[in-house]
Amino acid sequence: MRPQARLSPSPPASLPLSPLLGKYLISDLPSARDIQPYLERMDTHRWYTNFGPLVHEFEQKLTSLLAVADPNPQNGSIHVTTMATCYQALEVGLRLLGVPAGGKVLIPAVSFPACPLAVQHAGTEAVFADVDPTNWMLTPEIARRVAQKTRLAAVMPLTLYGIPLPVVAWDEFSRDTGIPVVIDAAAAIESQAVPHKGLVAHSLHATKPFGVGEGGVLAARDPDLIARARVYSNFGMVDRISYGDGTNAKMSEYHAAVGLAQAARWTAAKQKRRALLDLYRRHLEPLAYAVSMHPAIDQAVVSLLMLRFDQSTASDLIASGKAEGIALHHTYLPPLYHHPHFAGIATVDCDGNILPGDTSLQMKAAHMGHSEAMHRHIVGVPFHPFLGEEDVAAVVAAFQRLADL
Amino acid sequence: MRPQARLSPSPPASLPLSPLLGKYLISDLPSARDIQPYLERMDTHRWYTNFGPLVHEFEQKLTSLLAVADPNPQNGSIHVTTMATCYQALEVGLRLLGVPAGGKVLIPAVSFPACPLAVQHAGTEAVFADVDPTNWMLTPEIARRVAQKTRLAAVMPLTLYGIPLPVVAWDEFSRDTGIPVVIDAAAAIESQAVPHKGLVAHSLHATKPFGVGEGGVLAARDPDLIARARVYSNFGMVDRISYGDGTNAKMSEYHAAVGLAQAARWTAAKQKRRALLDLYRRHLEPLAYAVSMHPAIDQAVVSLLMLRFDQSTASDLIASGKAEGIALHHTYLPPLYHHPHFAGIATVDCDGNILPGDTSLQMKAAHMGHSEAMHRHIVGVPFHPFLGEEDVAAVVAAFQRLADL
Repeated sequence: MRPQARLSPSPPASLPLSPLLGKYLISDLPSARDIQPYLERMDTHRWYTNFGPLVHEFEQKLTSLLAVADPNPQNGSIHVTTMATCYQALEVGLRLLGVPAGGKVLIPAVSFPACPLAVQHAGTEAVFADVDPTNWMLTPEIARRVAQKTRLAAVMPLTLYGIPLPVVAWDEFSRDTGIPVVIDAAAAIESQAVPHKGLVAHSLHATKPFGVGEGGVLAARDPDLIARARVYSNFGMVDRISYGDGTNAKMSEYHAAVGLAQAARWTAAKQKRRALLDLYRRHLEPLAYAVSMHPAIDQAVVSLLMLRFDQSTASDLIASGKAEGIALHHTYLPPLYHHPHFAGIATVDCDGNILPGDTSLQMKAAHMGHSEAMHRHIVGVPFHPFLGEEDVAAVVAAFQRLADL
Repeated sequence: MRPQARLSPSPPASLPLSPLLGKYLISDLPSARDIQPYLERMDTHRWYTNFGPLVHEFEQKLTSLLAVADPNPQNGSIHVTTMATCYQALEVGLRLLGVPAGGKVLIPAVSFPACPLAVQHAGTEAVFADVDPTNWMLTPEIARRVAQKTRLAAVMPLTLYGIPLPVVAWDEFSRDTGIPVVIDAAAAIESQAVPHKGLVAHSLHATKPFGVGEGGVLAARDPDLIARARVYSNFGMVDRISYGDGTNAKMSEYHAAVGLAQAARWTAAKQKRRALLDLYRRHLEPLAYAVSMHPAIDQAVVSLLMLRFDQSTASDLIASGKAEGIALHHTYLPPLYHHPHFAGIATVDCDGNILPGDTSLQMKAAHMGHSEAMHRHIVGVPFHPFLGEEDVAAVVAAFQRLADL
């Protein structure tokens, strides 16, 4: 233990912790009162789904929000269609890019099951990529090295924990390789820019900073692609006749009502998350030698705050934290090749060396060094807008004790 | 014209029609005020999706509603899981029955695009069956004749316009042939009994009598099947690890809130539809020689009221009605083999004679006589709880004039 690293005043171990620390995430959605005016509008026009007025208005709001991260105002317009879920946005996105059946789609190994499931249901084959050790994600550089050795039909990188992806670099990847990109920007509304090529899918699930319950968004620069996605989301029908493939992926007016209410309180909701991030940063400063945040965390509206403990074992810390009533967690870990359902999926390391799906888990783990290191050292802390400075101090004090810092 | 068939008093042609007749369907969903108490419960527990307390309570209500049509109280319990849409209930249902890839699934030709799309996305092959001329639907007798000539992997009959299917006969079909059945009971909440074998999928889309915006239900007697459907609807995950295939097909707490509010007003909502049906029946009585309702209409909570005009051409009537401001329609028609996207699907007549998908539309139409007759003679009338007796009289008077009855 390093005495100079102890925060003062830190709560004594005997002080009861807030039960709010027993949840690592509490959804921050509009109240019944916030939503009520939008529902009253629905009473008037009796339009409850199938692209009603609230969905239209919400899509306009989303278009503005998605333009915030635009690196260049000359980039032209952004086009948006709502979806019932991000999963559906991903599956529809892959289908609309015309990725050939059986084609390989590269996705990061540290991700959510929605990604490989969307790839498989779109008739394509998932390949799990190892991640960059510094930014924890699948980068254009890794994808380029993989593409040199393995024929890829598409790449679906993820904005892990809401941290945005470099849109210019991904556009260059697409331009140079001809391989289309669908960005899974799950929790990165307003942080993730829209590329010139390809598509971006967002999640509006209740666990996301911009939550509406269940919801998704598909965005692109190409208006035709978004128009086709919209038709696809309503059974491929035009005037009730099916001219192409489709499904039911429409956002209802109810979720659009929640979305409009969420948009109205978004600035305040973001600020609370920013303030909490700043609290964590300040309290963690004395432990900087052993605990680090993601280097680009300031580009995100944080949904899940994950810390890297270089000298500690994540699973031990999480178990000890839970025993003390602090909901430490390891969301999106273990890497997906550990999940029994995805055991048959090939893995590829950052140099592009591929191991077939039927390789043992032990060999895959040895090969996917950076993903495994994340599994060993990344720990999530309670992060929701109902926490205050005392709670943050209590979490950090617990780290000092539990990790013997 | 037969003078004795004219209603008295009938509105003169010059009387302006209610603009409510300009819509054949207006959704009858709970008001903002009806929903508010459920949203306030969500404010308290901050649980917005992923099988929250409102979804649980709504599923209990649904279980009771689905038991109403049970032909025998000794039949044992019914198990229910909510879905985001009926489309997803159908696709998930087919997948869980283990229908082999490429296996043929028989569906009626007079249906909604969701049916063949669900079949195709489940990795199976749709075959369009002609329908019974009296009850307009795919019957167990037709399916038996088809199964004698074509190897079927499953059958997915539809409760067209909310009219329930004979559950005992479909159970016998399954028992005798070994072919599983998924009943698409789209608009038949409370009317359709749950079979002993197989599955029932319901729609809670805004256009259905029991609407919640977007929503679906999957029901069965087999608790294991429903438990597996529930896991499937949340990415196949147990404790955040994927053990099997899955998707995101969860109903949010918002839609469950609407569902609970709808359940609280269901008796009144049903009664309004029944009263409107009775009005139509009374006013149509003098035209019984030329206009008929479905023989089993009294078993349905009517969503769409369709009439058969034996001596008239539906498309002419619909066009003339529209010109007069009366929203006549032909929902679920033309038969699906007319839709360009489904042109490649095989058709089979009521004797089990099959025509391959690449047969011309003209030859298919000649072969699917009963479906074509429906297309020629079935017309839907405005049917929503905002219509009164004057509106019904005006519609019937228009028929007399337009069809020269």
